[in-house]
Amino acid sequence: MLSSPLSRTTSALSQFSSCELSDALIKLSVPHGGHIPDIHSVSPGNVCSPAYTVKMVLTSDTEAPKLTGGHFVDQAKEGYVVVIDAPLEAKSAVWGGLMSAGAIARGATGVVISGNCRDIGEHRDLGFPVYSRSHSTLGQSPFTRPSEVNIPVTIQPQYSASGSLDSAGLFPAVTVNPRDWIVADQDGVVCVPQELEEQVIELAQKGRAVDELCMRDIKAGKGVQASFKLHRGK
Amino acid sequence: MLSSPLSRTTSALSQFSSCELSDALIKLSVPHGGHIPDIHSVSPGNVCSPAYTVKMVLTSDTEAPKLTGGHFVDQAKEGYVVVIDAPLEAKSAVWGGLMSAGAIARGATGVVISGNCRDIGEHRDLGFPVYSRSHSTLGQSPFTRPSEVNIPVTIQPQYSASGSLDSAGLFPAVTVNPRDWIVADQDGVVCVPQELEEQVIELAQKGRAVDELCMRDIKAGKGVQASFKLHRGK
Amino acid sequence: MLSSPLSRTTSALSQFSSCELSDALIKLSVPHGGHIPDIHSVSPGNVCSPAYTVKMVLTSDTEAPKLTGGHFVDQAKEGYVVVIDAPLEAKSAVWGGLMSAGAIARGATGVVISGNCRDIGEHRDLGFPVYSRSHSTLGQSPFTRPSEVNIPVTIQPQYSASGSLDSAGLFPAVTVNPRDWIVADQDGVVCVPQELEEQVIELAQKGRAVDELCMRDIKAGKGVQASFKLHRGK
Repeated sequence: MLSSPLSRTTSALSQFSSCELSDALIKLSVPHGGHIPDIHSVSPGNVCSPAYTVKMVLTSDTEAPKLTGGHFVDQAKEGYVVVIDAPLEAKSAVWGGLMSAGAIARGATGVVISGNCRDIGEHRDLGFPVYSRSHSTLGQSPFTRPSEVNIPVTIQPQYSASGSLDSAGLFPAVTVNPRDWIVADQDGVVCVPQELEEQVIELAQKGRAVDELCMRDIKAGKGVQASFKLHRGK
Repeated sequence: MLSSPLSRTTSALSQFSSCELSDALIKLSVPHGGHIPDIHSVSPGNVCSPAYTVKMVLTSDTEAPKLTGGHFVDQAKEGYVVVIDAPLEAKSAVWGGLMSAGAIARGATGVVISGNCRDIGEHRDLGFPVYSRSHSTLGQSPFTRPSEVNIPVTIQPQYSASGSLDSAGLFPAVTVNPRDWIVADQDGVVCVPQELEEQVIELAQKGRAVDELCMRDIKAGKGVQASFKLHRGK
Repeated sequence: MLSSPLSRTTSALSQFSSCELSDALIKLSVPHGGHIPDIHSVSPGNVCSPAYTVKMVLTSDTEAPKLTGGHFVDQAKEGYVVVIDAPLEAKSAVWGGLMSAGAIARGATGVVISGNCRDIGEHRDLGFPVYSRSHSTLGQSPFTRPSEVNIPVTIQPQYSASGSLDSAGLFPAVTVNPRDWIVADQDGVVCVPQELEEQVIELAQKGRAVDELCMRDIKAGKGVQASFKLHRGK
């Protein structure tokens, strides 16, 4: 029933919240539930689109490939969301107002940044959804540079670079493949692998139906445990 | 004059801001001033209620006790605020929309989480005050589980798990005992030990009176030092 | 054309965003582009003023100089912004409502804190711009104390104290000298050294003119790369 994933940029996934989709992915034994942690809504607007991936590297990294095919924003595709993996150490931004304007001109639907943005007011004025770790006054140059696009990117939690908090392997990094579905709202960002789209939709529908029954009974004072047992079976 | 702490869920502490109460606790030589750091208002609403404590552990921790007495939300008491201590490493949430609905049904007044919440929009729609470290799209399972309720919980600062920033022992962890008073507003969260309630109220009243005189004189241009000397005596 | 920097508290720098000024500083080979990272707008209002610097130390640091000349807020000058360097480890605030009132009485224009503030609602009610790392319920005493004012302060990134994230030397600390220009808006905080003011204004004007041409062409769908090549020459 779903049309070819090669041509489609909309999905019934858009009916669900990021939390409902993580729940479905957990049921499918995806260990991280698709959750890309520590990313916040900076310029309002929900996103549900296939990923156009961009890998940024430190400019000091001369070994990493050089970007080909033109500016990374010009290579964004209509109906896609830009997903940027930036070095955790960077205090500079990898996205600004001109980038949002260029992305809108290409028909992109938003940007999700494992890194910083700047020009917050411009994104909001343009009505372009931006999700990022934090903000900066610095632009990309001379700190970072785009290296590759349309490749798998593996996004680390924010504080895991140097043996600190998240490093015990408790939370696995999330790999985003080009064309994976990205859903972002105020609770955060979820990556739904292409090949799981239909199963996730089906499970999210079931999950929502069950949660609605639970919510009704819980609001009616029947208790969380009793409501879960009745409708979730445990 | 105050009625028995065993039956009472309101306190004159509610007349004061979290900052005024920390000031009073510092005057009483409580080393951390009751301050539970790094927790932010996520769903609006101030809280001043006795604590119903909940200890979450990593699911991988099979040694920790198993929860008894039913779902932890069903065990919340009318007029109490739920205080959750969750493992610092968890990138998942320990509180969502169904939990807020269950807590409201029980008459709880809010939730303070040393950890993450999800379903932010639902808490706001329900008008239920939520304070947390951050947000996530992931639910509790399979990452964490409730272990014990109504026990003392000792809450660490956010970044102290692995020898980083807060670890030099500069900021002591705060122990919240069941029935301690929890006051939360946009400046943060304060725990007032039960046995200090009356002294804290008295000192906070005096502190406010002095601060009001200082504010009047400072606004009138009399200088901070002169105003402090006149009204605070130093 | 510019009047003496010794008497002037306004600058044409105020016409530009923090991002435009960082861009100009990067063009002048200032390695950090003036960016003071990890500081957020807490009480609204943009700032563009010369810096009145304040160094806070841990109270346990008995070696550091003792403040002379009166309360640090009383020493603030009309038209200046208070810039506070506080110990990274402190979970307490170094600025509260009485400080904002005192700063307003002195004619100060705002405060930028490498540290925490408290009394958030009071700053907003007073209409006093506050930028800080985070918030707390605790006041300064007994955790920190002012040590020196009107001296150069070197501000570290937030997480660099203990060998974590920023420690690889990737992002240099920013030294703020008294009378350096501080520009703060929702994208963050930038320090423009006094001696670079005119060059920065000139470069920011040129940069803005170029960016406006780029924005026009990018919005018209001419592509980011082509627009940059045409107007930026690369």
